[in-house]
Amino acid sequence: MEQRRTVYMDHAATTPVRQEVVEAMLPYFSERFGNPSSLYALAREAKEAVEEARGRVAAAIGGRPEEVFFTSGGTESDNWAVKGVAAALRKRGDHIITSAIEHHAVLHPCEALEKQGYRVTYLPVDEFGRVDPGAVEDAVTDRTILVSVMAANNEIGTVQPVAEIGRIAHDHGVLFHTDAVQAIGAYPVDVDGMGADLLALSAHKFGGPKGTGALYIRRGTRVATFMDGGAQEQGRRAGTENVPGIVGLGRAIELAVGEMPRSSARIAAMRDRMIRGILDAIPDTRLNGHPTERLPNNVNVAFRYVEGESILLLLDSLGIAASTGSACTSASLEPSHVLTACGLPPEHAHGSLRLTLGPGNTGDDAEYVLTVLPGVIERLRQMSPLGGR
Amino acid sequence: MEQRRTVYMDHAATTPVRQEVVEAMLPYFSERFGNPSSLYALAREAKEAVEEARGRVAAAIGGRPEEVFFTSGGTESDNWAVKGVAAALRKRGDHIITSAIEHHAVLHPCEALEKQGYRVTYLPVDEFGRVDPGAVEDAVTDRTILVSVMAANNEIGTVQPVAEIGRIAHDHGVLFHTDAVQAIGAYPVDVDGMGADLLALSAHKFGGPKGTGALYIRRGTRVATFMDGGAQEQGRRAGTENVPGIVGLGRAIELAVGEMPRSSARIAAMRDRMIRGILDAIPDTRLNGHPTERLPNNVNVAFRYVEGESILLLLDSLGIAASTGSACTSASLEPSHVLTACGLPPEHAHGSLRLTLGPGNTGDDAEYVLTVLPGVIERLRQMSPLGGR
Ligand SMILES: Cc1ncc(COP(=O)(O)O)c(C=O)c1O
Ligand SMILES: Cc1ncc(COP(=O)(O)O)c(C=O)c1O
Repeated sequence: MEQRRTVYMDHAATTPVRQEVVEAMLPYFSERFGNPSSLYALAREAKEAVEEARGRVAAAIGGRPEEVFFTSGGTESDNWAVKGVAAALRKRGDHIITSAIEHHAVLHPCEALEKQGYRVTYLPVDEFGRVDPGAVEDAVTDRTILVSVMAANNEIGTVQPVAEIGRIAHDHGVLFHTDAVQAIGAYPVDVDGMGADLLALSAHKFGGPKGTGALYIRRGTRVATFMDGGAQEQGRRAGTENVPGIVGLGRAIELAVGEMPRSSARIAAMRDRMIRGILDAIPDTRLNGHPTERLPNNVNVAFRYVEGESILLLLDSLGIAASTGSACTSASLEPSHVLTACGLPPEHAHGSLRLTLGPGNTGDDAEYVLTVLPGVIERLRQMSPLGGR
Repeated sequence: MEQRRTVYMDHAATTPVRQEVVEAMLPYFSERFGNPSSLYALAREAKEAVEEARGRVAAAIGGRPEEVFFTSGGTESDNWAVKGVAAALRKRGDHIITSAIEHHAVLHPCEALEKQGYRVTYLPVDEFGRVDPGAVEDAVTDRTILVSVMAANNEIGTVQPVAEIGRIAHDHGVLFHTDAVQAIGAYPVDVDGMGADLLALSAHKFGGPKGTGALYIRRGTRVATFMDGGAQEQGRRAGTENVPGIVGLGRAIELAVGEMPRSSARIAAMRDRMIRGILDAIPDTRLNGHPTERLPNNVNVAFRYVEGESILLLLDSLGIAASTGSACTSASLEPSHVLTACGLPPEHAHGSLRLTLGPGNTGDDAEYVLTVLPGVIERLRQMSPLGGR
């Protein structure tokens, strides 16, 4: 009998913390444990470590250290960006433009703002999940205060034309926020090139620890505070700094961005082999997302006549960790808002499988998945209540 | 020459993560790194670890697991409690009662709400920093939606009569939140005994990691979400769970609360020896905070004719880590809002020193401080620009 393998292909949900990152964090738990706001040697050590990490994040995204604010993750960064701009610019306007396929960390804050009287335009996307920059231009009014469009989608991997969208926002004097949580480490992210006034990132998506992220805020951008309290982070984000987490974020982003040119090419080749292999071997299958403008690590395919959850269960029993969509909704049975926005009828949307690769995946992992997946789908189709065959 | 010692006496600012806690956390960085929201073995392991930690936190405070929500720390818990109740009950009322000596994590959210049209009563305290429960009763109106009074103060250590305050709030049908960040591990905290509908705690104050905390929300309590996004934490607090941090919080609270009876008695005895020793040896000195109703680890004394920052600098050069007030304001030169509310004239407030003990402190540490402190104060008084002698 074949030895059972374990293949982790859900890197868009989360990634293992890299060994170098854990080692960088460790001293800050019990030895250099000072509170960076205090006034003694132990505290200064912690403060310096935080500032060093800030420099690394700034360097990785082409910003300045004083424009980087540490948060508890991508969700907080997105909440802060959207709600913070809305609160700060309430007198100037009440209209926000975003896309229908943003992560819930952007969509749900937008919905919360609608309840407070703001107006939100949720731009549609094409069948590949792309936002039309022209649609952004058409949606802008003199009440628009923020455009928020993600750099790359977490489910289907589609990369958005953010540079163009950022330029359009600026042409109209509107702030531009981009959720770059999935983009960091996948392709070069540059706040100037993207025209981003605000940019969200999250450490656990690129080999750093969960519970740590950052919000880039371009100098001079008006954003209300979200977390109120102590005077940390230039008085703009209260709360004792998560020093080990911040150190880990700094080290992880430096590693991920440094290795990107080589690792992305390798991973993209594996992605292409897998997409080809799946589409060739399994009938009634289509690729979700954009054929070329997509994250190097994203494979997302829709199988007709099968139910995504069942695919996951069988794959799990074969040692393969995968997802149907974003992790934070994978426990729900709703069809994905992303696939729905791309125009997939619900039967297709329900039969989707997302495999997201990481630096730890080998060619053998890809082969293993390609070997077992056709049988899994075949078996599910034979017993499918969704009918068809 | 005497060997230079290192004495950490700023446990109210932060504590080292205990070795057992680091060990409990470690596997969740790189091995059991799954996203608890995902649907495979690796994710289930993470989910179980989170739920086990939730049970530990619930047990430590006398709540139920489903009433415990993990956050990024005390600041987020306080922000969520105050802003969440205000938003959820806006139609019922617009008045909040708190005290003048709350942590900024409560005060600043209250100020943010005032800008949105809410009314806030900041109750005064007596010279020992106690809130008069009768004053809470007098302040309640039919527009009052929340009373927020901390369990114990982080600067002067004064313990508040929260059980009485909670009862009064409930008699008037008003919700009660208590910031118990400094109380956990110091004395028994019981949400029912305290009448708390909401209770904030933070791991790094009792041997757990920075960047992790919890908000207790009594079943049925209406609180708007603060962090919007994915469906984590029963859909009430979005964001990928900080699994290692949560595991660390669970282990730390279990240890701290388990060891409390013995460790608190030992630490309180050390505290009393230090207070007596300082007041006896150094003239023109007074105790800040309550003589008996105070945290077992808190020593806070005011020296006339000296400047607190200078005391810290000299102590730091002697290897002693201490504080003038709360860590998050210790870098500012404003007199402490807590000492000011207690009626200390600014000259005194500026000359305050806070020493907060922890399980790692020994009798030798206390002796060392008692040996060097008189000389430090004497030296500063001789060169003091604050005049007097
Ligand atoms: C695109 C995107 N935005 C935001 C988030 C939220 O980040 P975090 O998990 O750090 O809360 C995620 C991942 O969950 C994501 O994929
Ligand atoms: C009483 C009190 N409340 C809230 C906080 C904030 O908690 P955190 O440091 O976890 O943000 C602190 C400590 O900083 C505190 O002492």
